[in-house]
Amino acid sequence: MMTKQKAKFSLGLDFGTNSVRALLVDVGNGREIATAIHNYGTGQAGIILDSHNPNLARQNPGDYLTGLTAAVKDTLAKAKRADKKVDPSRVIGIGIDTTGSTPIPVDANGTPLNFHKEFKKNPNAMAWLWKDHTGHTEAAEITVLAANEHPEYLAKCGGTYSSEWFFSKILHCLRADPKVFDAAASWVECCDYIPAVLTGETRPDKILRSRCAAGHKAMFNNNWGGLPAKDFLAKLHPKLGALRDRLYSETYTADIPAGKLSNEWAGKLGLPKGIPVAVGAFDAHLGAVGSGVSPGKFVKIIGTSTCDICVWPNDRPLADIPGLCGIVDGSVLPGYFGLEAGQSAVGDIFNWYVEYIQPGGPAKGSHEALTKKAAKFKPAQSGLLALDWNNGNRTILVDQRLTGLLLGQTLHTRPEEIYRALIEATAFGALTIIKRFEEYGIDTQEVINCGGIAEKNPLVMQIYADVIGKEMKVARSAQTCALGSAIAGAVAAGKDTGGYGTFGQAQAAMCGIKKKTFKPDPKNHKIYQEIYPLYRKLHDAFGTKDWSGSLYSVMKDLLALRDRQLTTDK
Amino acid sequence: MMTKQKAKFSLGLDFGTNSVRALLVDVGNGREIATAIHNYGTGQAGIILDSHNPNLARQNPGDYLTGLTAAVKDTLAKAKRADKKVDPSRVIGIGIDTTGSTPIPVDANGTPLNFHKEFKKNPNAMAWLWKDHTGHTEAAEITVLAANEHPEYLAKCGGTYSSEWFFSKILHCLRADPKVFDAAASWVECCDYIPAVLTGETRPDKILRSRCAAGHKAMFNNNWGGLPAKDFLAKLHPKLGALRDRLYSETYTADIPAGKLSNEWAGKLGLPKGIPVAVGAFDAHLGAVGSGVSPGKFVKIIGTSTCDICVWPNDRPLADIPGLCGIVDGSVLPGYFGLEAGQSAVGDIFNWYVEYIQPGGPAKGSHEALTKKAAKFKPAQSGLLALDWNNGNRTILVDQRLTGLLLGQTLHTRPEEIYRALIEATAFGALTIIKRFEEYGIDTQEVINCGGIAEKNPLVMQIYADVIGKEMKVARSAQTCALGSAIAGAVAAGKDTGGYGTFGQAQAAMCGIKKKTFKPDPKNHKIYQEIYPLYRKLHDAFGTKDWSGSLYSVMKDLLALRDRQLTTDK
Repeated sequence: MMTKQKAKFSLGLDFGTNSVRALLVDVGNGREIATAIHNYGTGQAGIILDSHNPNLARQNPGDYLTGLTAAVKDTLAKAKRADKKVDPSRVIGIGIDTTGSTPIPVDANGTPLNFHKEFKKNPNAMAWLWKDHTGHTEAAEITVLAANEHPEYLAKCGGTYSSEWFFSKILHCLRADPKVFDAAASWVECCDYIPAVLTGETRPDKILRSRCAAGHKAMFNNNWGGLPAKDFLAKLHPKLGALRDRLYSETYTADIPAGKLSNEWAGKLGLPKGIPVAVGAFDAHLGAVGSGVSPGKFVKIIGTSTCDICVWPNDRPLADIPGLCGIVDGSVLPGYFGLEAGQSAVGDIFNWYVEYIQPGGPAKGSHEALTKKAAKFKPAQSGLLALDWNNGNRTILVDQRLTGLLLGQTLHTRPEEIYRALIEATAFGALTIIKRFEEYGIDTQEVINCGGIAEKNPLVMQIYADVIGKEMKVARSAQTCALGSAIAGAVAAGKDTGGYGTFGQAQAAMCGIKKKTFKPDPKNHKIYQEIYPLYRKLHDAFGTKDWSGSLYSVMKDLLALRDRQLTTDK
Repeated sequence: MMTKQKAKFSLGLDFGTNSVRALLVDVGNGREIATAIHNYGTGQAGIILDSHNPNLARQNPGDYLTGLTAAVKDTLAKAKRADKKVDPSRVIGIGIDTTGSTPIPVDANGTPLNFHKEFKKNPNAMAWLWKDHTGHTEAAEITVLAANEHPEYLAKCGGTYSSEWFFSKILHCLRADPKVFDAAASWVECCDYIPAVLTGETRPDKILRSRCAAGHKAMFNNNWGGLPAKDFLAKLHPKLGALRDRLYSETYTADIPAGKLSNEWAGKLGLPKGIPVAVGAFDAHLGAVGSGVSPGKFVKIIGTSTCDICVWPNDRPLADIPGLCGIVDGSVLPGYFGLEAGQSAVGDIFNWYVEYIQPGGPAKGSHEALTKKAAKFKPAQSGLLALDWNNGNRTILVDQRLTGLLLGQTLHTRPEEIYRALIEATAFGALTIIKRFEEYGIDTQEVINCGGIAEKNPLVMQIYADVIGKEMKVARSAQTCALGSAIAGAVAAGKDTGGYGTFGQAQAAMCGIKKKTFKPDPKNHKIYQEIYPLYRKLHDAFGTKDWSGSLYSVMKDLLALRDRQLTTDK
């Protein structure tokens, strides 16, 4: 693909857990002109930790601003070097995705509290990163109160309010550090803060808040008038009830401009003044957009954990699907419910195994070496079966108090067999989620994968195809989140300036699928169809309250399948 | 201890899986004067394997004879060097223990068939080592027939006839290699063959057969007239029925002389002519003797697998205890039932983990390094729980078709925590066996451990004490099997020649306990008493047909115990 003389560009900004990425995209064809990453400077790999409290994870919002400046300038410079026809003056829009829920306490001007001298080194005055779990007690409290008084609040978020979410964190701050809480005029999600800064309008009551963040993490829903009722929040703490008035009552989808790029930031970044900056959204949701999500397309963003995203027209009836992380109108595409599910650990399990458990060194124990050896095994040949719960179960059990399980070891079990069993466990977990969607009538016909593991490990993709029984496609872009943001930028810019009127039009032009796809091997799929009920037996036995049955056959059935596979071998 | 001028000696010969050990012992005080080992020369570490058949494990009986000659001569030479007062002429008896069931097909003279040219390289004409499982189909067949027609045959051996045992192997030979079967005048256990050779009387009908081998592995019991009925064996195969007449009808305990050392072998070995050679027995059973077994003393021989041995007066009533490997009158001590139980893998599980699964090298991943790190954990602190079934379950489930299980892994789980969980799993398995004995009224008041792991790993012993809630003692001798054989030699020699009239008298003089014992830590024992029901839940859920219940709490209970332990830490 060539860059046309009159090509227009959009800039996607993807704020991850450890770094920010900028990506410059050709709006006409999705060509990725240049990209750059900047690592956050504060803490360990950008995260402020507390050796006395493993639940704590914060970030310095200053890192976001330093990082985005560096990443954008670097991207533009690279673009210039790569293609002289690329001119920053033809950038028509900016889109932003971030982690979340990552709320920041701010003053009346929207300035993060840790920018003030008195709170400079106070982690409670910084961004409360998504993976901060200090509010686990508060999360349980919110869940109980909602279950009793407003079960509808939980029905859209899997039945459990998480410690990773907005109000758990704020309520915890209120209790753990009332000084910070009292100093906060409001709290803004990271994905709301960045567009606010870039447009120069950071006053909390002026910020256009993200539907995606509000709906998935703050129980925002127009059905019950936006945020949870004031008296509900007040029952948790009167001050939390009072805070509701200083939060927001409207939310916006990512096709809407949050505002225009301020002169100050246009100058800093070397971009045209006044171009639209889209309302922010979460990384997984815009990642799904960048993967081409639309009805019938099921996007799996596979990284350390996994997000599964699909959409459903908001004018068609949709049940509350138990166990999903969230069902939010407009969180992915305007006009559609965004449905989010996920696995608490996927790549993290493989990394844990490779880094800590398996035997030594890159030659024997790397992902590459283990993958190569694991690929030689047939399904069932090892007799192993694992549960993928080393970090709890997000969907469909919504239970952090679950742990891993490995079954079927003999004295002959070798490390690569365990590695393969762990991959298979995550595939069975993925299948369990897809089945849940399908039970509720959601079409998951086409599965599109993206993220590091989908890119790098064909064995994982093949096992997913064989286990799930569907062709696994992989998104063309290696950074679908940043691409999704760039698409939001192009839609926020609109047709008249060379962008698009809708996400659908933008995706049609800018998204794609890699040529190489992974089709299920019918023989392997058949065996996995025999193993899955065994996985499901363990899943239900350890993960559900009302299960009853016998596990007596599990080890024996696995051995019988193994023996059959070994015999077929000859 | 000094060797008295007039000291008498006994020689113990211990035929293990890979080598034979000779041990010269002072009959007066059990002092171990000298010992030597000779590795078998044929096959891999003395075992003939078949790359096409993982079930096959054979030995060349010639190795036994070469090995015993070398080991005895070496021992006597070492003894001479160590103490000039030690004179081989004062050796009064020889005792023998071997692995088993390890039957050898022999001709009418008692010569192993592979000593004949035509069968020289035929593994079926050699010794069928205990761990040969080629007869697994035949074992199942024998079990079914016995269950239907003679359930009493199985009642004394845990309800299942094993592929490791006498008739499974012979029936398999009959089918797989009828030429060898037809050429065999009889079959003799290794522990019968060695005394026969040393006494010069190898004719099958003249050999004094071991009660221990016959009772534990060949369903021999005087209650039903010795070996299983001819028509029973004939139903399995007419030729097997016919073979019964060429086997034996009498069996003997290890206090009885099988005969006197032949002139030929006295000359070869440098020992006095005509000294008594005791009837043979299995290694574990004489190991228990060497550990000082008597009523109320429960001996655990802990190696790659574990044998648990205790005794019960044969004039007191004793129920058939379900799940035990064997209950045989006189198999350990004359006048007592010998009760045998065991765990299919203990050291083998630790070795598997260290050799294959854990991360690299002696510094990080040796038994020593892992033990050191694992010792720092409190019970329950890791949140892990394992089943010790990597090689099936011998007692109390008697089920080879069971496999390992590890539960409770998180992303923070480290290798030493898994190592500790595996140790704990074997401790829970040991406790399950002890509980079974106690349920049937067997006194297990005093636990005496022996074998490599009991000798070398204090953490294992401490965890066993904490889990089982009893003091763990360790036998004084590092080679209790060979010592037990030497004791048998001293009893076979009798009082008049300077030996003993009974095993009890010999043990009183020749056995001992190490000073260092392992007492349960009450706090740890209390926690393990909370974990054991969780182990038992998994044990029963996966190991028994009729279990029903909920496993929902298992992971959560472990996390709760972990959290409690972590809090107590502060």
